[in-house]
Amino acid sequence: MRYEDFVDTAYQPGKDELICDFYVESTMPIKKAAGGIAAESSIGTWTELTTVKDYMRKLAATVFYIKKSGEGYRVKISYPPELFEAGSMPNILSSIAGNIFGLKELVNLRLNDIHFPRKLARSFPGPKYGIPGVRRILGVRKRPLIGTIVKPKLGLRTKDHAEVAYKAWVGGCDIVKDDENLGSQKFNPFRKRFLETIKKRDKAESETGERKMYMVNVTCETEEMKRRAKFVADNGGEYVMVDILTVGWAALQTLRDLDLGLVLHAHRAGHAALTKNPKHGISMKVIARVTRLIGLDQLHVGTVVGKMFEGKKDVLENCAALKEDFYGIKKVFPVASGGLHPLSVPELVKIFGTDVIIQSGGGIHGHPMGTVAGAKAMRQALDAVLSGMSLKEYAKTHEELRVAIERFGR
Amino acid sequence: MRYEDFVDTAYQPGKDELICDFYVESTMPIKKAAGGIAAESSIGTWTELTTVKDYMRKLAATVFYIKKSGEGYRVKISYPPELFEAGSMPNILSSIAGNIFGLKELVNLRLNDIHFPRKLARSFPGPKYGIPGVRRILGVRKRPLIGTIVKPKLGLRTKDHAEVAYKAWVGGCDIVKDDENLGSQKFNPFRKRFLETIKKRDKAESETGERKMYMVNVTCETEEMKRRAKFVADNGGEYVMVDILTVGWAALQTLRDLDLGLVLHAHRAGHAALTKNPKHGISMKVIARVTRLIGLDQLHVGTVVGKMFEGKKDVLENCAALKEDFYGIKKVFPVASGGLHPLSVPELVKIFGTDVIIQSGGGIHGHPMGTVAGAKAMRQALDAVLSGMSLKEYAKTHEELRVAIERFGR
Repeated sequence: MRYEDFVDTAYQPGKDELICDFYVESTMPIKKAAGGIAAESSIGTWTELTTVKDYMRKLAATVFYIKKSGEGYRVKISYPPELFEAGSMPNILSSIAGNIFGLKELVNLRLNDIHFPRKLARSFPGPKYGIPGVRRILGVRKRPLIGTIVKPKLGLRTKDHAEVAYKAWVGGCDIVKDDENLGSQKFNPFRKRFLETIKKRDKAESETGERKMYMVNVTCETEEMKRRAKFVADNGGEYVMVDILTVGWAALQTLRDLDLGLVLHAHRAGHAALTKNPKHGISMKVIARVTRLIGLDQLHVGTVVGKMFEGKKDVLENCAALKEDFYGIKKVFPVASGGLHPLSVPELVKIFGTDVIIQSGGGIHGHPMGTVAGAKAMRQALDAVLSGMSLKEYAKTHEELRVAIERFGR
Repeated sequence: MRYEDFVDTAYQPGKDELICDFYVESTMPIKKAAGGIAAESSIGTWTELTTVKDYMRKLAATVFYIKKSGEGYRVKISYPPELFEAGSMPNILSSIAGNIFGLKELVNLRLNDIHFPRKLARSFPGPKYGIPGVRRILGVRKRPLIGTIVKPKLGLRTKDHAEVAYKAWVGGCDIVKDDENLGSQKFNPFRKRFLETIKKRDKAESETGERKMYMVNVTCETEEMKRRAKFVADNGGEYVMVDILTVGWAALQTLRDLDLGLVLHAHRAGHAALTKNPKHGISMKVIARVTRLIGLDQLHVGTVVGKMFEGKKDVLENCAALKEDFYGIKKVFPVASGGLHPLSVPELVKIFGTDVIIQSGGGIHGHPMGTVAGAKAMRQALDAVLSGMSLKEYAKTHEELRVAIERFGR
């Protein structure tokens, strides 16, 4: 079969087929280029083979849609589900998001979306908790959750790390997390950090009467990651966080399969090497769908108003991938994180609604009165928004918010 | 500390520091942008913090080089080794190749190279076999190794898969591998495939008197990947292959740590989503260095003359990363694969030298006389080159090569 033989724009994909939505720019005619993508991800290659068997022809992927889009084309391809190993995300991605990016004639190629058919989707567990489960554990019914990242991201010694976490909790944070590159460095080793910080969590819980969560970072090689996650589960933790891109899909499935009863928080460090260029790579929406199938409970999706690059349209699409109906698979809590502070809160609630975890690092620990006041200011900003008041009005009777507005209102 | 405080172009990095070489395009002044990259990967963030401790200042990363390059800048940053968890590739990459890609003001950012200091590099095992080990196992001292991929890449039933492999071996291939997206699909399940194919390997070995290798694809979730690799080791296999990008760095370290005595072959499906754009993402050279540290024995690095996009300069840089002196860490066998056929061989040997594995899929199974003849033609092409003859001359007495030249000589 030649590349062009994989194109049939009259084809109607079956309900059980996986569909990919690509943006393609090529030096080849588009029919050949699009057919090449379908071929290289199913039963074809660059040349005619003597080893093709008749029984396999039904496994060919089919280009069923080609339309001019900007400088290139939008191309949709349908893949018979038999092409994939059910329940194996590395296998699926090696097929539909593998070699094709490297083909010489494809100047730009971006995988913008994947439609997973029911049976293939349900071969993955999905989140254990998702939005309702996380809300149940925290005892917070409706409002957005407020989180912080211990800052500076690296360098604090364990005692100081735990102290910063404690202050954030007593100030009003629901969740405190490690930053993405805190593993088990000598200045703050994993086990000691977890134990000292969780002690402070208990203290903060008893002092505030609120549930408080610590998301410790278990990002590392798989066996050690498993040991660390078990250590957390065995010592009173309810959460772990993991860097999904640098750990990778195989280890992520392993962590979910461990099923330790922990809530799994997905940090996406490094995603933008793949997702940022609108013409090449893989969209964050795809990464969101993949993360939901594998079964993490929370995922960073951009901020719109913060230091991350994504605009509102992108962020809303990422959220939809986490929250839309998906064969009964639980909804993932979207996380807004990166450059946020109390003044961001009204806009964030407008964009995300209330099912969002708002994380503020510098916006809390950069408060001139310190971390406790910074966390208070975040909660005050949220209280203002939820009670329909302007921050300015609310700040008249709330000192921490007033100071935050001065500090972050440029 | 503000972003600019992380810049000191008079700074001379210490011998024990990790150094990254970036290409940067930013809407911010370059000093601020470059400082931001150093800040976000060490102890800074977008705003001043109240939680900074004096003892951590020595952990700051430092921008020590900024130079105009094209539409942007070349920026070099030095990182104190204490920032990283030794032996944890996910941790290191979350730091130096993580959040920074997502920063709004960085229009394009590419990590072009990493210099690993000795101590951090030696916290990883490196390859168990590398080039000399692989040559010892195969009993091939000097010449390039010839490999093939069973094609069509998906769809062959187990019996036919094993038969194609057998024909390739008896024709002259040293190595036969699965394609990157063959996992354990129903039409060709893993264990059955391995056992039937390895039987054919034994037959081919006894018929040819040459060592023959089967690289079965173990790409999947970590626990199952471990089970599959053990199954291979327990049943007479000497090799496994794995898709390094879709499996991910954590699982890759786990596979190496298992230390089953298997040669590990790294397929790079999906790399070009990261590596293809010369202005954004991560270079293949970086992926090559990372793969060598983690300890795989063979890695695809591009073809120059085949269907993959990389030019000669890129491919030679990738090879250098695999083969240059690196604190005594073993050399990785470079693999050229993708769109190759007998006519590619002279140029490949010119580019790569003899320490290369030349893999030809379509170029063997697309031979008009079939797979045995296709493999013979590849070996004949190699024999011609090594004996200093032109393919045309050699083809006068070698029918399979003559037909291949007709078929692939367009």
